[in-house]
Amino acid sequence: MSEQMKVISAAKSHGGVQGVYSHASEACACDMNFAVFVPPQARETPCPVVWYLSGLTCTHANVMDKGEYRRMAAELGLIVVCPDTSPRGTDIPDEKDNWQFGGGAGFYVDATQAPYAKNYRMYSYITEELPALIAQEFPADMRRQAIFGHSMGGHGALTIALKNPERFKSCSAFAPIVQPATAGWSRPALEKYLGKDKASWRSYDATSLIEDGHRFPEFLIDQGTSDGFLNDGLRPWLLGAACAKAGIPLTLRMQDGYDHSYFFISTFMDDHLRWHAKRLSDAKAGA
Amino acid sequence: MSEQMKVISAAKSHGGVQGVYSHASEACACDMNFAVFVPPQARETPCPVVWYLSGLTCTHANVMDKGEYRRMAAELGLIVVCPDTSPRGTDIPDEKDNWQFGGGAGFYVDATQAPYAKNYRMYSYITEELPALIAQEFPADMRRQAIFGHSMGGHGALTIALKNPERFKSCSAFAPIVQPATAGWSRPALEKYLGKDKASWRSYDATSLIEDGHRFPEFLIDQGTSDGFLNDGLRPWLLGAACAKAGIPLTLRMQDGYDHSYFFISTFMDDHLRWHAKRLSDAKAGA
Repeated sequence: MSEQMKVISAAKSHGGVQGVYSHASEACACDMNFAVFVPPQARETPCPVVWYLSGLTCTHANVMDKGEYRRMAAELGLIVVCPDTSPRGTDIPDEKDNWQFGGGAGFYVDATQAPYAKNYRMYSYITEELPALIAQEFPADMRRQAIFGHSMGGHGALTIALKNPERFKSCSAFAPIVQPATAGWSRPALEKYLGKDKASWRSYDATSLIEDGHRFPEFLIDQGTSDGFLNDGLRPWLLGAACAKAGIPLTLRMQDGYDHSYFFISTFMDDHLRWHAKRLSDAKAGA
Repeated sequence: MSEQMKVISAAKSHGGVQGVYSHASEACACDMNFAVFVPPQARETPCPVVWYLSGLTCTHANVMDKGEYRRMAAELGLIVVCPDTSPRGTDIPDEKDNWQFGGGAGFYVDATQAPYAKNYRMYSYITEELPALIAQEFPADMRRQAIFGHSMGGHGALTIALKNPERFKSCSAFAPIVQPATAGWSRPALEKYLGKDKASWRSYDATSLIEDGHRFPEFLIDQGTSDGFLNDGLRPWLLGAACAKAGIPLTLRMQDGYDHSYFFISTFMDDHLRWHAKRLSDAKAGA
């Protein structure tokens, strides 16, 4: 292990190792934590990498504690990387009483507006800096990567996949924000991070990206019907319409009675990991 | 649902419902929270009940969040009840800086010493009051019950099973305190709850109970070899010796490289639930 990364904790779990690590992030100009599960297969051979992006208010720890991904990731031989959701630290601009902006609410964008542009660069962090560190420090086969996430992290997964289709073999989401440019809980954040000119928001909005010609082979989305944010913030049918128009296959499963919590996410975690493993495995066969 | 119980939260998960409830406990003379997972099978027929007792510092929430029991409990049709580990409240005697005594450290005893005797009656709470409430409020088949737990809760499971062999069809534990009367982290607590006369401690010590003639059909124990508490507080070989002498079959699995955390517990949760389900199912066939 190099000097670039500090081990916060490491515990054996399901035959692999669940670790939490810290490093000095250049993109976010602060120390950042992240969690990585390395499956037992990685002792023999590099394993594919699945990125899980978390939702508003979360750190790396929420899905690590409640996501129930290790059993299936160990079975399928997947490395699971769970980054934080924003820059952190006492000298980072924040609005502590606003859970939809600042700390825990990076929205996976590169902010262009002062004072946020210095730290809130989660897009570069997730797509460039952290992958380079993972490639260097873990037994990862970076030719095989997949991405998924929840809520704000579902938005992150969709937009990052649409902008980097050559990198990711598959993309899925739990209850994603599919059109942050018009959702009440994300519009104010985009305005503060990116400015008032809504043209600049389009590259961080899954439906706009598809309208503007970006493509991805297919998406899997699970959405609970009892999710309190369904009709206001999430509205998966907007992605359905964009995908239908663009000819992108979308498997949208409305899950009866499920809410927005990790009780929902953990229920369908196995399905998503199997979805990714199948496509990562096909990628290997075709490589 | 009666007036005896308040629903704190309820969420669909793995086809069942994970709830958190509150009630006014007579045994502990305070309001107590507990978590219950009801599997989908309970919509059709009463289901067996598995009790999970948690360790020091825990509430009902730790295993609910990190134990990863719902998928398998839903598959096997098991109700899982997760109580708190002590009485709670501002007027309850406590030692807030002592994690091995008071709040979060009830040790599943009925205290006899002032000022603890009024509230610290977790043995009666777990064996009498809470089962009566579960029987009344949930679709539970109380003729089929099993019990397990972790660390202090493993101690609770072992001692409660040994004292109530007619009630529980099976008992298992993760890294249990098998001889609290001599372990550094439990001896001071037993003295404060039960007094200086060590004779009174024997009915809350698994090895002493076995020495004193209590029996149970068999035990399953998983213990991590990298558990920092192994040689001081846990010492499963002491139970091994007592079981060997008494002719009680003990399946003690030393799990290489695992620690004391929920990363360890969740790894072997499926095995334990299957162990209990098999014995609960045999009990049904034989009923």
